[in-house]
Amino acid sequence: MRSAALILLCLPATLGAQPAWREQALLDLARSPHARLHPVPVRAVKLNPGFWKSRQNVTIEKSIPSLLTLLEEHGVLDNFRRLSNPADYTPRRGPLYTDSDIYKWIEAAAWSLQVRPDPKLEATLDKLIGEILSAQEPSGYLNTWFVEDREKLRFRQMITGHELYCLGHMIQAAVAYYRSTGKRALLDGSIRFTGYLLRDFGPAPKQPLLTGHPELELALAELYRLTGNRDYLRLAGYLLSGVETARLKLLPRDTAYTFSGIPFTSRTQFEGHAVRALYAAAGAADYWLETGDAAYRRTLDTLWSDLAAGKIFVTGGVGSRASGETFGDAWELPNRQAYTESCAAIAGLLFNQRMLAATGDAKYAALMERALYNGINSGMDLNGTLYCYRNPLATGSTEKIRNPWYNTTCCPPNLQRTFAALGAYFYSTSKDGVWAHFYDNSSLDWRLESGAALKLEMKTGQPWNGDVSITLNPSKSEEFTLYLRIPDWSGDTRVLVNGRPAPESPQANTYLALKRLWKPGDTVTLDLDMSGGLIFANPRVAEDHGKVALRRGPIVYALEQPDNPGVSVFDATIDPRTPIVAEHRPGFLGGVTVLTHKGHAYPRPLDGEPLYSAQPFKATRPVDLTFVPYYTFHSRGPGAMTVWIPVQ
Amino acid sequence: MRSAALILLCLPATLGAQPAWREQALLDLARSPHARLHPVPVRAVKLNPGFWKSRQNVTIEKSIPSLLTLLEEHGVLDNFRRLSNPADYTPRRGPLYTDSDIYKWIEAAAWSLQVRPDPKLEATLDKLIGEILSAQEPSGYLNTWFVEDREKLRFRQMITGHELYCLGHMIQAAVAYYRSTGKRALLDGSIRFTGYLLRDFGPAPKQPLLTGHPELELALAELYRLTGNRDYLRLAGYLLSGVETARLKLLPRDTAYTFSGIPFTSRTQFEGHAVRALYAAAGAADYWLETGDAAYRRTLDTLWSDLAAGKIFVTGGVGSRASGETFGDAWELPNRQAYTESCAAIAGLLFNQRMLAATGDAKYAALMERALYNGINSGMDLNGTLYCYRNPLATGSTEKIRNPWYNTTCCPPNLQRTFAALGAYFYSTSKDGVWAHFYDNSSLDWRLESGAALKLEMKTGQPWNGDVSITLNPSKSEEFTLYLRIPDWSGDTRVLVNGRPAPESPQANTYLALKRLWKPGDTVTLDLDMSGGLIFANPRVAEDHGKVALRRGPIVYALEQPDNPGVSVFDATIDPRTPIVAEHRPGFLGGVTVLTHKGHAYPRPLDGEPLYSAQPFKATRPVDLTFVPYYTFHSRGPGAMTVWIPVQ
Repeated sequence: MRSAALILLCLPATLGAQPAWREQALLDLARSPHARLHPVPVRAVKLNPGFWKSRQNVTIEKSIPSLLTLLEEHGVLDNFRRLSNPADYTPRRGPLYTDSDIYKWIEAAAWSLQVRPDPKLEATLDKLIGEILSAQEPSGYLNTWFVEDREKLRFRQMITGHELYCLGHMIQAAVAYYRSTGKRALLDGSIRFTGYLLRDFGPAPKQPLLTGHPELELALAELYRLTGNRDYLRLAGYLLSGVETARLKLLPRDTAYTFSGIPFTSRTQFEGHAVRALYAAAGAADYWLETGDAAYRRTLDTLWSDLAAGKIFVTGGVGSRASGETFGDAWELPNRQAYTESCAAIAGLLFNQRMLAATGDAKYAALMERALYNGINSGMDLNGTLYCYRNPLATGSTEKIRNPWYNTTCCPPNLQRTFAALGAYFYSTSKDGVWAHFYDNSSLDWRLESGAALKLEMKTGQPWNGDVSITLNPSKSEEFTLYLRIPDWSGDTRVLVNGRPAPESPQANTYLALKRLWKPGDTVTLDLDMSGGLIFANPRVAEDHGKVALRRGPIVYALEQPDNPGVSVFDATIDPRTPIVAEHRPGFLGGVTVLTHKGHAYPRPLDGEPLYSAQPFKATRPVDLTFVPYYTFHSRGPGAMTVWIPVQ
Repeated sequence: MRSAALILLCLPATLGAQPAWREQALLDLARSPHARLHPVPVRAVKLNPGFWKSRQNVTIEKSIPSLLTLLEEHGVLDNFRRLSNPADYTPRRGPLYTDSDIYKWIEAAAWSLQVRPDPKLEATLDKLIGEILSAQEPSGYLNTWFVEDREKLRFRQMITGHELYCLGHMIQAAVAYYRSTGKRALLDGSIRFTGYLLRDFGPAPKQPLLTGHPELELALAELYRLTGNRDYLRLAGYLLSGVETARLKLLPRDTAYTFSGIPFTSRTQFEGHAVRALYAAAGAADYWLETGDAAYRRTLDTLWSDLAAGKIFVTGGVGSRASGETFGDAWELPNRQAYTESCAAIAGLLFNQRMLAATGDAKYAALMERALYNGINSGMDLNGTLYCYRNPLATGSTEKIRNPWYNTTCCPPNLQRTFAALGAYFYSTSKDGVWAHFYDNSSLDWRLESGAALKLEMKTGQPWNGDVSITLNPSKSEEFTLYLRIPDWSGDTRVLVNGRPAPESPQANTYLALKRLWKPGDTVTLDLDMSGGLIFANPRVAEDHGKVALRRGPIVYALEQPDNPGVSVFDATIDPRTPIVAEHRPGFLGGVTVLTHKGHAYPRPLDGEPLYSAQPFKATRPVDLTFVPYYTFHSRGPGAMTVWIPVQ
């Protein structure tokens, strides 16, 4: 094991021609001793025309440029400029965490440069980074809120201040920009700020530290991976260790809400602020990938089970309560009241991404897919200019869920950085082969961990059709394993290798391991099971009892008012004896497969019926229902929408 | 009509022997021109041993005395004493509205004196009232929060300050104490404070006023009724008129949340803080009873329909969201998350009490009964020392819903004043007769509006049995109408007059009018329909779809863990083909009828099952289920409880 790790360590150098930064993955686990899977660089995967390519295109062409304009209009960059230009005094604008918004935007733009080089965008980034760094103090400190009168509050409002949260996003932006361009300015700036922390903060007698809004933990782990400086990992471990409860006089409600301040390994359930808790778990998973600390593994398993068994929506959304943006109790998954912040779904993706890398267990990829195709995908509209902060599973007729700007604009750049780098989520390597996690038209141009180059071409009608065809082109014939994810929703999957059935029969929600001598031009085809379609929720979920959600492949559907003029979507029921029919509509909502069904509605509109009755309410009126993919909801403006439909 | 009103006006005087204050009703509508029904004094109704008598006993014997001890311990009275005793300086304690807590306690204790004279309690009240009035300023102003440094904030924090809310409860306490004892000290004190308001506040050029937490409107209407000074009613009308939106710079969110500050007659739905909104509606109903303003009637009808059609729980509880203690959207009635503050259910009772008095429509009495027997009754435990702030319709295994003290202790004295005066809710008079609203062992000793004395004796096994027997003893034979409420839940009611069927057949949810020459000793018997028992909710209520609540007579039932050791209450289902059996258990929970049912549970506990499945979850394991009255929930300590049960 150790010698294998050492070989990996040498790999980037041995490839010679490429500078090291070009070889670094989105999440660079190449030397992480407890990672089974190793992600690939963003540039190693090209998305080809298809489902995700169109989402990535709109992200790069519309969303990223238009958000920079909005960030400028709202003073987010001026908040930096005013500090290096005191003569031209302007007041600071926006809430205290706006620095993180531009860092996350830089991260998104940086990844996009690996997908689509853009000298003009790169020049813009260089200029912005210069302006940001001009505001950095000689000590390394950099935050546009805790300045002037508020300088005395630095590291004194650690529950609410978002100081370390902003630094975390600075580091992540810096890492992304370095990996995309090799340019170190922002990276060196973030290292200076981190060095400032390392000098003065830590276990007594240093000053105590709390992330308050966890995020820095992930960033420090990645900074360690990039630099090899283990002090960064130690600082992440210190933040996760939660040893400062007493010195910081933290109350149980603080440590529950912020998911920090007590030992991470003492946690038994997700609670408090959903994004904080899931970022903390992702950071703890990073720490475990580097240290192999068994107590972290146990806690992460416990937390994952807590999430999967009762706290994640069928769309992959997370966070039940608007009040405090928090998790609810187990099975507390209200549909219309669901908070389901885009950032929380993304934080869940990051947590599962790390758990998948550590284990190769398909259950983590299943939750990633559920979120990516539904509760994350919904977060940005088809035009790339409207964003969801909340992604509820039902809306009334007037709720305006999609908006161009939020005063707290954390979600839009978080969605952008996810979609910009998306291809890198599709494949991994391990010491024995290559892994395919999600299916879309794409080309992998990378290498096996033996060092041999590997090109892989995937062609598919996913997510609308079940056909997947993969062509492998290793630089030479070589024995390795191709791990193919058999989705949890594909009950009956057929896999052919060069036209002949695979030796083992594929099992849903596992990886099918095809170990053989692979030759250039070998092909694998999958026929994924697109049948089925009803999802039942555990009856403990109070709002979903006696209802179903419709699913086809990875796509969860919703009933929206514009497609169902004859009935309120809240008065419709599913007839389990009548088929659900798929119909592809190329020109509709960017090209989607809709589902149609002959269901029933209540004889009279329910909104005119009594609240309580001694007689059951029975739906008897036949109605034709049309369902659209959930992620497209409100593409035609606000209106009634629901995912869970009563069965009668 | 006018002459009838004048006769009524003279009535108290003509009765001669009694001082006028003894004749005043709980809600004194004797001279209210738009009241069809006239409530009776608390002392006119004696509850006899039975369901409500035991609740009233525990209120008077345990709850009222023990709460005074707690109010003293928490400094609520010292907050007054410190102001008249500046030498003995102690800091003020508790939140800004504690004055209202002692006023509400005084109101409860005052009504109890009509039920059970108690010279020692009366002496305590006299002493407390003296101490309270010692803190009143020469101007008439009296509030223990807005003093010293905060004096400058008087009438400047009208959205949050609860200044007029406290005055409202001062007036109500004063009215109750006057009606129970004839003593005027507190009444005169509250008149002085109200006079202070009348001098300086009102339409421009006076200073603007906002109740912020509506309550004063009700109190002013009653002070008008007691004193005849129409300025008080005018002030209530000014507060309801909502003409100060601009002068007070009120934002839409303020006027929505506080249900004040815009014209009451512009309201179209209940929204915002549930207690505020329902007190405002009760006050507006009072205003309508006095003025007959048709715009108020229209608005009150609209609001009542909004409440009844989608915003009231099956227990009569009100208020869906914990955040802000607010109403939710229509049909947003979550069970475990239900906020359902005891005060909100009581505010709903007060609103319906006034609507019933105005109209004689049984639909208002139905909502009063639903709340009284369930969501209000649940608010105080069987021992009278633990109170619910929230009355949710489901709880997990650890939620501690019943507590002896709340820092905001509005609910306990609100429950006490309701139970102490309860008999007065049971009967009314109208110009043509007498009305029976609720059925329990009780004696009415009052008079018809013709002036003739009337004694009425009611004997019943309600709420456990359907038999009701009424003996009428008018002082002389006289033609009048006995209005008997046929409950909404009694589908097949039989009524006999002196052993012979009533001329008209009783219709559920109406008043049966028995007009005849009534002679002393005449009897009426009712056989109420105790069958039925399943309540279905409109499927728009997301959490109740495919479920039922169990009801027998006016009592709503709950499934509690201690009675169902073989199954989690959240894993149980009802089999609609199997009977629900009533069984009276005299020694259990103070003597209740339980319901038993052979239902089904899921084969394995649901908390070990997946969150989502492609297969439906089917309950197949037979289980014996026992249901207890909802109002007794958690009598055996915290534990899992649920009202709505899936049907399979």
